[in-house]
Amino acid sequence: MSEINRREALGLGVAALAGSLVSASAFAGAQLPDNVSKGDYESALKAWRSIVGEEWVFADTATLQPYMKKFIPDPFNRCVPMGAVAPQSLEEVQAIVKVAGKYGIPLWPVSTGKNMGYGQASPATPGQVILDLKRMNRILEVNVELGTALLEPGVTYQQLKDYLVENDIPLWIDVPTVGPIASPVGNTLDRGVGYTPYGEHFMFQCGMEVVLADGDVLRTGMGSLPNQKTWTAFKWGYGPYLDGMFTQSNFGIVTKMGLWLMPKPPVYKPFVVQFPKVSDIDRMIEALRPLRVSSLIPNCVLMMGAAYQLAMFKRRDEIYDGPGDIPDEHLERVAAENGLGAWNSYFALYGTQDSVAAIEQVVRPVLTAAGGNVYSEEEMHDNPWFHHHQQLMQGGLNLDEVGLTRWRGNGGGLAWFAPVGPVTGDDAREQAALATAILSKYGLDYTAAWAIGWRDLHHICALLYDRSDEQMHRRADECYRELVNEFGKRGWGVYRVGTAHMELAAQQFGEKNREVNQTLKRALDPKGIIAPGKSGIYN
Amino acid sequence: MSEINRREALGLGVAALAGSLVSASAFAGAQLPDNVSKGDYESALKAWRSIVGEEWVFADTATLQPYMKKFIPDPFNRCVPMGAVAPQSLEEVQAIVKVAGKYGIPLWPVSTGKNMGYGQASPATPGQVILDLKRMNRILEVNVELGTALLEPGVTYQQLKDYLVENDIPLWIDVPTVGPIASPVGNTLDRGVGYTPYGEHFMFQCGMEVVLADGDVLRTGMGSLPNQKTWTAFKWGYGPYLDGMFTQSNFGIVTKMGLWLMPKPPVYKPFVVQFPKVSDIDRMIEALRPLRVSSLIPNCVLMMGAAYQLAMFKRRDEIYDGPGDIPDEHLERVAAENGLGAWNSYFALYGTQDSVAAIEQVVRPVLTAAGGNVYSEEEMHDNPWFHHHQQLMQGGLNLDEVGLTRWRGNGGGLAWFAPVGPVTGDDAREQAALATAILSKYGLDYTAAWAIGWRDLHHICALLYDRSDEQMHRRADECYRELVNEFGKRGWGVYRVGTAHMELAAQQFGEKNREVNQTLKRALDPKGIIAPGKSGIYN
Repeated sequence: MSEINRREALGLGVAALAGSLVSASAFAGAQLPDNVSKGDYESALKAWRSIVGEEWVFADTATLQPYMKKFIPDPFNRCVPMGAVAPQSLEEVQAIVKVAGKYGIPLWPVSTGKNMGYGQASPATPGQVILDLKRMNRILEVNVELGTALLEPGVTYQQLKDYLVENDIPLWIDVPTVGPIASPVGNTLDRGVGYTPYGEHFMFQCGMEVVLADGDVLRTGMGSLPNQKTWTAFKWGYGPYLDGMFTQSNFGIVTKMGLWLMPKPPVYKPFVVQFPKVSDIDRMIEALRPLRVSSLIPNCVLMMGAAYQLAMFKRRDEIYDGPGDIPDEHLERVAAENGLGAWNSYFALYGTQDSVAAIEQVVRPVLTAAGGNVYSEEEMHDNPWFHHHQQLMQGGLNLDEVGLTRWRGNGGGLAWFAPVGPVTGDDAREQAALATAILSKYGLDYTAAWAIGWRDLHHICALLYDRSDEQMHRRADECYRELVNEFGKRGWGVYRVGTAHMELAAQQFGEKNREVNQTLKRALDPKGIIAPGKSGIYN
Repeated sequence: MSEINRREALGLGVAALAGSLVSASAFAGAQLPDNVSKGDYESALKAWRSIVGEEWVFADTATLQPYMKKFIPDPFNRCVPMGAVAPQSLEEVQAIVKVAGKYGIPLWPVSTGKNMGYGQASPATPGQVILDLKRMNRILEVNVELGTALLEPGVTYQQLKDYLVENDIPLWIDVPTVGPIASPVGNTLDRGVGYTPYGEHFMFQCGMEVVLADGDVLRTGMGSLPNQKTWTAFKWGYGPYLDGMFTQSNFGIVTKMGLWLMPKPPVYKPFVVQFPKVSDIDRMIEALRPLRVSSLIPNCVLMMGAAYQLAMFKRRDEIYDGPGDIPDEHLERVAAENGLGAWNSYFALYGTQDSVAAIEQVVRPVLTAAGGNVYSEEEMHDNPWFHHHQQLMQGGLNLDEVGLTRWRGNGGGLAWFAPVGPVTGDDAREQAALATAILSKYGLDYTAAWAIGWRDLHHICALLYDRSDEQMHRRADECYRELVNEFGKRGWGVYRVGTAHMELAAQQFGEKNREVNQTLKRALDPKGIIAPGKSGIYN
């Protein structure tokens, strides 16, 4: 582990430098990695220009601006790229990787780089060049009968949805929040989640094409058969199943990915169950658990707190102008005024008229007995929050949650803190209390939601702050670090984390885990060309 | 690849030797691996005896007999262990692995070694010591609310089922065929499949404890958190998802595994849809595909051919005494006499009375319109084949399929050949024709079934022969090899294969796939201690 610690220390050293550099000149190009001379870097840029064309290599402050935007706290501005290159094909990616290997320049691959709240296009450490795959945006295949698709990384959810609609294909997509601009490939590689029964994206992924650090191409699963027929249909292939290794990792660059799409059901019926009190959290989770574990409710139930809901469409000062934290009673009252509960759990049923009715009559009494108020479209009418989830739970797209970034001001600050715990009311209550206490200490609100996946409970805290307020920006970073550490100690590890806090998150998961990842990294990418620091992994 | 080819050539050399040795003396202990002296092997045995006790190390012909039994063709008797050691705890496994590393002796881990038709406890190459984990048979945890379990490798399906029944826990297991004696951990590591909605076993696996080649222990996923709470509840953890790497592989020895169990539904209703003609295969698959892809039918549909069905309970000579292949018309007639179709597709609905009824009324007309006859328990009464699947589709246990091994005689010969193809009628027809032609050439019957998983079509051919007939044994091996090669060329790769044919199967999946697996093997097990040749992977 000493090697990892050394790397991290070096990284932090460079980070401090980067911070001062950026505030001085904002010329990211100055942050060269160790062992790379300015001459080497210029040679690499020249080689890349010859591969992708002048206009697709970015190495100055002005053209790099689109890659600088981030909502996550990064007060020392460490997560800053020094350049970017945007290939259009697999062959161009291979050639770019070979050049990177020759000069020892790390590449940070992004699909569309719109990962709002997890760092967008920003790399985990300074001195990296963004490998921007947005131009590789072909929908290579949609198999209507099987419900499979093969996509390049630059394809957006909107593009895929449009393709299905335009071709009258009765398949649904499953979107994460801010779906229109995000990439199915990128989101799945980060193990993102959505709102339909296909919400656990990596579960419904099938087949990858991966460029390795030496520029060679691996097709996973059945894709490695010379005359493959089931690359996007059969997940595992023969021998070790390797796709998982390429998620949340820096072991290769994924250039194609297969996904499964959900057949559009004849009937779709969305619901919300509202609980009036903030303290209802335990009874809500206890009531929903059996419905989810049994798949009676087939989609990932999002249990949205009132503060999170309100922050989508309102500013904090519209809700509360008192001192300190927003009191629970106040929040409950404002929620009620807006047709919301303190907790609002959205779920849906999918099937035929009769099968949906049959399940509804089982689900409703369970939730009602727990003190929830169950509503469907008839009662919720045009309630904007219901409308939002009503769209999402059928693979519809919207940008409503972008509003979260303005809760505390115009500076645009958002970081997801998302620990995973057991699906029990007691555990959720403990987690909520701990998160609230830590956030409060830093003057931040507990704006949270919960999601029950297959067997896990995700606690999704939106850490909302104003990035233009330098003090608050620093506090947000400190707060985030304390959250990761304090939750980690108690066995609540995060399922995903923003680029600025990947190293910290990895520290929670024990030394052996890191050693094995490092062993794999050294075997697959001995020069450390691909995304050093991704998920805390260095070569 | 030259290194792999060299290894394979060496292996075959030793195999020929082994064959002659075994037919002469049957003393497997004589087959030492390259670079291991008799003295080293004796030292290792001594060290292992001090770890597990005298009685749990097996190194002579008599005590090794239980590890010699196999149904797969292996005419040169290459897949023969030279010894076996049976630890009782994680710590003993670690100590055994360290001794193996010291003396360079390969270990072939088995859970219960009852993998009928895939090689049982036999290793892929000679000169290996079986690491028999059957004594590690603790059910470490069953979480009733979440439907999760944590098991050691020696736990059998029967044992887990008994535990649930005795403790009145309303959770179901999902069994493969010959479930009672098989191990959930072993079957999942081989990526076996079953009959309920949880039939894709690896999909419902969550968390592993793995002993690495250096004797260190890795816990995957959330299990690596120091105070983990969701090891068996959240599959992915943080950073690269590694569990898949340890399936069908030799990268580590799995000593604990988490599984998800299915909540017992209020209503379970099994069905069969029979198609009368052998040539109905395409219409059957076309009819069932949309029902499976949409999850209207939630379990893995097994479409059993009449010959496969009959072979479970009858001998070939009871069915047919003519020359050559059994004619289709004859098979159809015998099937009808036994209350079977030429194809018999078993599926079930799970839910409430109303929801099951709602889905039944959608499913029935689709199948009837395709020419199928749909029957439920009322019509099938005590039909033994229906009874068999009626049990399996609710996680019930039986050994009915052991009968397959006696179809051609008392010698006990069975090898599964299981290629994966697209779920289309045309593809299935082509595959069936090719398999029938190759089998016929070697005087063997086409006794097959099909299964639609999530998006894939498994073609499950039971290659049935009489192992006591030396000529037929050789023909079965040659036939199996031709099947793997001819199907592989056409893009129909196997999902799983017996120990004697792992190298051959791996050859179908392309050079890059093998290179990457070898790179990983060398990184994680540089001395090649764990199961050389598993899935065609050598260090």
